[in-house]
Amino acid sequence: MKKFSKNEIDAFIGFMDFSKVEGGLVPMIAQDYKTNEVLMLAYANEEAVRETLKTGIACYYSRSRKRLWKKGEESGHFQEVQQIFVDCYKDTILLKVKQNVAACHTGYYSCFHREYINGELKVHGEPCFNPNEVYKK
Amino acid sequence: MKKFSKNEIDAFIGFMDFSKVEGGLVPMIAQDYKTNEVLMLAYANEEAVRETLKTGIACYYSRSRKRLWKKGEESGHFQEVQQIFVDCYKDTILLKVKQNVAACHTGYYSCFHREYINGELKVHGEPCFNPNEVYKK
Repeated sequence: MKKFSKNEIDAFIGFMDFSKVEGGLVPMIAQDYKTNEVLMLAYANEEAVRETLKTGIACYYSRSRKRLWKKGEESGHFQEVQQIFVDCYKDTILLKVKQNVAACHTGYYSCFHREYINGELKVHGEPCFNPNEVYKK
Repeated sequence: MKKFSKNEIDAFIGFMDFSKVEGGLVPMIAQDYKTNEVLMLAYANEEAVRETLKTGIACYYSRSRKRLWKKGEESGHFQEVQQIFVDCYKDTILLKVKQNVAACHTGYYSCFHREYINGELKVHGEPCFNPNEVYKK
């Protein structure tokens, strides 16, 4: 798990451009650190990026709930950050993570488990867990 | 190269939710179809998604230029779409592409060629081309 010091976090925040998406957000992509499978995309504000770098656990900003959202806070399906990359415009973050159980709230390992083929969204693979058992609320 | 019919494109547009990012946009991630390396993230509006599915070449919406942007239109570094995936909320697209030459305008194969380590953005790999020779304007 990759954690950063206060000074390193300040420097990283200084590099980033949070102005491109309404609300001071950057898209943050989570990718499996071993297979490179893309797991999900969500958004992060400055506070969420700081929390991610400080703890080594991916933390996003939930636009629907309007608050920080530590991925896995309800399910326990945390993402342990192994490496952090930025794009050429410094307005997008790519996390290579060790995903606990699965990334998608539907039970699949990746949120991108459906491919568009012949006019239909075809599901790849099988669920890793039953959402009804994990999300009790 | 994966192309879709008019009916298939209409159906796909019907699935997608363009309401989440200001301007009717969805983030579109391009990923190398062989290695799964993430190459770039840009945005697409409905028209850009239609163009991508119709032609089989990735087309984005440039927020700075305020127009459709066929990736590679100036450099020739097109992205040939092999597979198209959508996430669980249908508000993000993942393209698996055959990248011609390189994705990044800086010359590197991926826009995510810099890793944050020890307070610095460390470059991985070497450039694939010289931007001064490719972008003449």
